Amino acid sequence: MKPQINVGMIGLGTVGVGTLRVLLENKAEIERKIGSRLEVVRIVDLDTTSERPVKFDKSILTKNANEVLDNPDIDIVVELIGGLHPAKDFILRALKNGKHVVTANKELIAKEGTDILSLADKQGLDFYFEASVGGGIPVIGPLKECLAANKIQEVIGIVNGTTNYILTKMANQGSDFADVLKEAQKAGYAEADPTADVEGFDARYKLAILAAIAFTNRIDVNNIYCEGITKISGNDIAYAREMGYALKLLAIAKRDGQEIQARVHPTLIPIAHPLANVNDVYNGIFVRGDFVGDLMFYGRGAGSLPTGSAVAGDVIDIARNINLDATGRLPCTCFENRRIQDMEEVETSYYIRMLVDDKPKVLANIASIFGEHNVSIATMVQKDHCKGRAEIVIVTHKIKEKNFRNAISLVEGLPVVSKVNNWIRVEE
Amino acid sequence: MKPQINVGMIGLGTVGVGTLRVLLENKAEIERKIGSRLEVVRIVDLDTTSERPVKFDKSILTKNANEVLDNPDIDIVVELIGGLHPAKDFILRALKNGKHVVTANKELIAKEGTDILSLADKQGLDFYFEASVGGGIPVIGPLKECLAANKIQEVIGIVNGTTNYILTKMANQGSDFADVLKEAQKAGYAEADPTADVEGFDARYKLAILAAIAFTNRIDVNNIYCEGITKISGNDIAYAREMGYALKLLAIAKRDGQEIQARVHPTLIPIAHPLANVNDVYNGIFVRGDFVGDLMFYGRGAGSLPTGSAVAGDVIDIARNINLDATGRLPCTCFENRRIQDMEEVETSYYIRMLVDDKPKVLANIASIFGEHNVSIATMVQKDHCKGRAEIVIVTHKIKEKNFRNAISLVEGLPVVSKVNNWIRVEE
Repeated sequence: MKPQINVGMIGLGTVGVGTLRVLLENKAEIERKIGSRLEVVRIVDLDTTSERPVKFDKSILTKNANEVLDNPDIDIVVELIGGLHPAKDFILRALKNGKHVVTANKELIAKEGTDILSLADKQGLDFYFEASVGGGIPVIGPLKECLAANKIQEVIGIVNGTTNYILTKMANQGSDFADVLKEAQKAGYAEADPTADVEGFDARYKLAILAAIAFTNRIDVNNIYCEGITKISGNDIAYAREMGYALKLLAIAKRDGQEIQARVHPTLIPIAHPLANVNDVYNGIFVRGDFVGDLMFYGRGAGSLPTGSAVAGDVIDIARNINLDATGRLPCTCFENRRIQDMEEVETSYYIRMLVDDKPKVLANIASIFGEHNVSIATMVQKDHCKGRAEIVIVTHKIKEKNFRNAISLVEGLPVVSKVNNWIRVEE
Repeated sequence: MKPQINVGMIGLGTVGVGTLRVLLENKAEIERKIGSRLEVVRIVDLDTTSERPVKFDKSILTKNANEVLDNPDIDIVVELIGGLHPAKDFILRALKNGKHVVTANKELIAKEGTDILSLADKQGLDFYFEASVGGGIPVIGPLKECLAANKIQEVIGIVNGTTNYILTKMANQGSDFADVLKEAQKAGYAEADPTADVEGFDARYKLAILAAIAFTNRIDVNNIYCEGITKISGNDIAYAREMGYALKLLAIAKRDGQEIQARVHPTLIPIAHPLANVNDVYNGIFVRGDFVGDLMFYGRGAGSLPTGSAVAGDVIDIARNINLDATGRLPCTCFENRRIQDMEEVETSYYIRMLVDDKPKVLANIASIFGEHNVSIATMVQKDHCKGRAEIVIVTHKIKEKNFRNAISLVEGLPVVSKVNNWIRVEE
């Protein structure tokens, strides 16, 4: 039992402030659980002068990362600067210097996790990253521990708060993407450059991490199909709802025989699905295990304090390990290297919205082309019609994406079809 | 690192079979995570002859508990017989003999947890019980680890699948309690003697465990107020829904100043609350932490395989601890002894359904008695009326239960009031 465990932080931005606040404000409770004192002894940030919404001894601030990385008194390094560089170098150096590391850096883990985890394992050190997925929601810990007896069959997440906020507002207000994005930016729920969120890149990093842990499988993030929400219209959401679906940006990973599906895209899910009620900036991670059945973890997927809660939880876990000389207790579990299916090979259902001539035989025409490509139609509904044209909505049965794409491009070329407005995958 | 870790099981009923199945069917995956072989070497059950839905070497079955408890080869004892005796003696003897223990026995932990945990801590042994609350849903682990940096403000659970199934059916079919109970018994979701479930006793045990961990506080289960669902009618559920509420049997624990609220009773919650969508036999545990904000854990709260998943998860965690010589890593955290408020002191809102004379001034009359006792009315709606009588529904603002009870007993005595049909607490 060490009488005192020392933490060095790198990065005092939004998440850094949240982490520092929880470690300081709940210090007594945390130390009682660890059985040792827990001190933040040094904080690195390029900005050492701005006021931040946390009370702490400013003399521990420094611009020099070496004061944490090479400091022999520091046991645990908390990296919260984000991005690949210099974060990766900092973490590798911390590990080389025998320090345990906690991070919330999803991009880094998704892209460079293998290097980092193999060094951590070699050194017998802890590298924890609960905060990288779902903010404050416990999900990585439960997958590694409570659910460890299961073969996980699928993980489906609403893991990006910005896009879920936008889609919820679009659903509630009947408004279109561009308008709601502006609102979200004003409200502070979307960045000035929203690309990483609305194009699904953020969700893709998180899915890479979840899938690797759930399936104990090495995941190359570049092999995860990714499509954002910029093409979704208010109409799609309204029609989906009428047909009993909610429209969400889902990060989907499934075992499929000896392969893995991993894909991020807007998706219709039945309103009875637990994820359909995850709204606003909330995140939800749905897990199906062979023994445990269906689970969902729900909560705030971002923000200073929730994310700080998860980072501090990792610090506490590592401190407990240090006190029992049990670090390296949960090493990397990427035992396997199953292939991620190309999107064209994935089987799923589709919703299609298109504008067609409002005259006899048009629907039969469309249905016959779908039929020739084995695309079986589950529902076909005519919505508005005006000026000789009708908007129709079709939902198909399951079909390989390749077949679907062939069929839809032929349908798009039909003289009676003015426009295929949108098509969206459906998760049953 | 031990090359092999040995498990002895006591009890091969429903949960025992689920546990054995997951340990055998996912043996390879589990052993890879632990880094050792994991063998179930002995199983105690009074019935050593019946066929069970699991393939295993029958020669390990015995009627003699000593063959597990006194067996020097066994590292982990899994107790799945339920009830207080002889389960408590078995567990204490296992601990005295240096064995780690896993159990799903909520009644035992709620009533005798203090004795067991203090012996386990003294011996530096693990005593784990994830399966005791919420079946397969990870919640005890996350509260002890991922969320350890938070002061938990409240835990509200739908933790009894039988009553949630009954209430969901009542809501969907508009039927009354007694009819649905019979259905549930036929479907295997309710016991022949349903008392422990429908009177809330099962939920009370689980709340005692959740509150103790969430608030790091000793909880005497006898001080938890408990009221079942037998008096709920289809009308209550229908009216609640019209007013924007779902009716659920909730197990509620909250910090309230220096005291704790802990109570189990039917409750109206707003339909936008995450728990309102937890239906059928599913369980949901809502947690509010000072940093993490609102969370919910959702899944199957009972059943052979989900509960077996949680038991096996504990076995894996202990095996990891054994291999690192790190057992006793998560000792008892009941540091405090805050008082549980008497129900009369609890402040909450109320829904009331009553039958009154359908004539002028009746509502004014009732409202004035409520007013005299500081019971402020939020909503008052007249529902059906027939034969000179009207059914009215009232929802109050928050008020101490003592004041409310005084007021309602006076209202009940009014000549114009035929009957107070029901009153139910409301959680806003």
